[in-house]
Amino acid sequence: MQPDMLSTGQGILASQPFSALLGAELTAFAPGLATIELANRADFAQQFGLVHGGVLSYLADNALTFAGGTVLGASVLTAEYKINYVRAARGERLIARATVIAATARQAVCRCDVFIVSNGSETLCATAQGTIVKTGD
Amino acid sequence: MQPDMLSTGQGILASQPFSALLGAELTAFAPGLATIELANRADFAQQFGLVHGGVLSYLADNALTFAGGTVLGASVLTAEYKINYVRAARGERLIARATVIAATARQAVCRCDVFIVSNGSETLCATAQGTIVKTGD
Amino acid sequence: MQPDMLSTGQGILASQPFSALLGAELTAFAPGLATIELANRADFAQQFGLVHGGVLSYLADNALTFAGGTVLGASVLTAEYKINYVRAARGERLIARATVIAATARQAVCRCDVFIVSNGSETLCATAQGTIVKTGD
Amino acid sequence: MQPDMLSTGQGILASQPFSALLGAELTAFAPGLATIELANRADFAQQFGLVHGGVLSYLADNALTFAGGTVLGASVLTAEYKINYVRAARGERLIARATVIAATARQAVCRCDVFIVSNGSETLCATAQGTIVKTGD
Repeated sequence: MQPDMLSTGQGILASQPFSALLGAELTAFAPGLATIELANRADFAQQFGLVHGGVLSYLADNALTFAGGTVLGASVLTAEYKINYVRAARGERLIARATVIAATARQAVCRCDVFIVSNGSETLCATAQGTIVKTGD
Repeated sequence: MQPDMLSTGQGILASQPFSALLGAELTAFAPGLATIELANRADFAQQFGLVHGGVLSYLADNALTFAGGTVLGASVLTAEYKINYVRAARGERLIARATVIAATARQAVCRCDVFIVSNGSETLCATAQGTIVKTGD
Repeated sequence: MQPDMLSTGQGILASQPFSALLGAELTAFAPGLATIELANRADFAQQFGLVHGGVLSYLADNALTFAGGTVLGASVLTAEYKINYVRAARGERLIARATVIAATARQAVCRCDVFIVSNGSETLCATAQGTIVKTGD
Repeated sequence: MQPDMLSTGQGILASQPFSALLGAELTAFAPGLATIELANRADFAQQFGLVHGGVLSYLADNALTFAGGTVLGASVLTAEYKINYVRAARGERLIARATVIAATARQAVCRCDVFIVSNGSETLCATAQGTIVKTGD
């Protein structure tokens, strides 16, 4: 982990009003990987009391973008992604770990696993794959 | 549009704390289709001032689920979906329109187009496709 | 339909050895759309006698690329796509109809519906969504 | 590797006429994983001489299905998947390695990496993620 790189990434995350609304934290940010975490809250639920898919999607989308940004630079956007919800998400914390699978100068294909932490143990609840592109070219 | 069906759907949406947090409204809900709208807010932005992809994803995911629910019943979840962001989203309102493409007794494949409304005119900003499944079988 | 444009597209399809192996035909090719058809054959089946998903995927992938090419030019590739198989495919002919949903100078997001023709009637058997990109930039 | 399980899987692959047409070989088949390989041929190309995306898609789709089948049993189908083509594929052999990421009694979410072998060295050329479902329930 490069502390300066992590601080830079945390500054970018802090400049996203939606991430601030949800309380997301960047906990790892190094070449080829990014981890974003979120303390679960009652107002993140859907009608059955599980974490809303939209929250899991937000996390996956954002972690994918940050992972892509570690190889493409700060001006990046998620162009597209796909997510599978694999287990009902109940617990106190969410962790989205994204990695770069392959990259060119202009785009990166990344993967992200989203885990729910319940009583200290992690369970995979969603997995995503997507394309991050440089903007402004 | 069947008013009672719409009211039922609005009740389900109101029972989702995350949808209440964002202020989502169900404006159409009839066999094979659902429309969810969201007034844009400053705290929905990412770092470049555009609507955060997580907000568009939330809308697409939820509209897909509601569309699937119109043919599968109330106990449904989104199993998976894929979204392409096609244009930068700036404007005052978001509209997600989802339709059922094909359904069996147990699952529905649905599509959703997400539009941004700016100065009264709609522009497509994202498009999604996914699978909604019945739960509890 | 512009006959010259269709002929040009048919020439490109004919220059794909894999499309020749399967016997694909381009039957529509106009700005924003492409249709590729395939006569079904016994050797396109999987172990249950249905059309193999790989054949449906080939059709969707190729129709998406051709549709994207109608707005981006001849030097295009499919960057990614997603496909849902919605019904078992049995019949005598396959038709993949792709359209451009949104395009920039460099990429096009396209959709494709794949139909199986059985006793003269068409049924949707798969639906796809993907990104076509210009190459060589 | 369980030899009997591998033989069973090879028998299923051999019963797919489309896999026989292309010459696919199942080289690994154990709980949670499947590997399918394909010797490249001139008639697998697209118009630029690269391996056609339809061939890569066939491989990914089929390897995903076989991986899912190792945990769900022989009566399985790919319900949906997404694929990113990450590098131009030129070489003499293709290898698709799929693994199960998460499974319930009825479905498995799987991933597949497709490699091209050129002069004895492997390069990732595509990556896929999808859902395999039991049929006949």
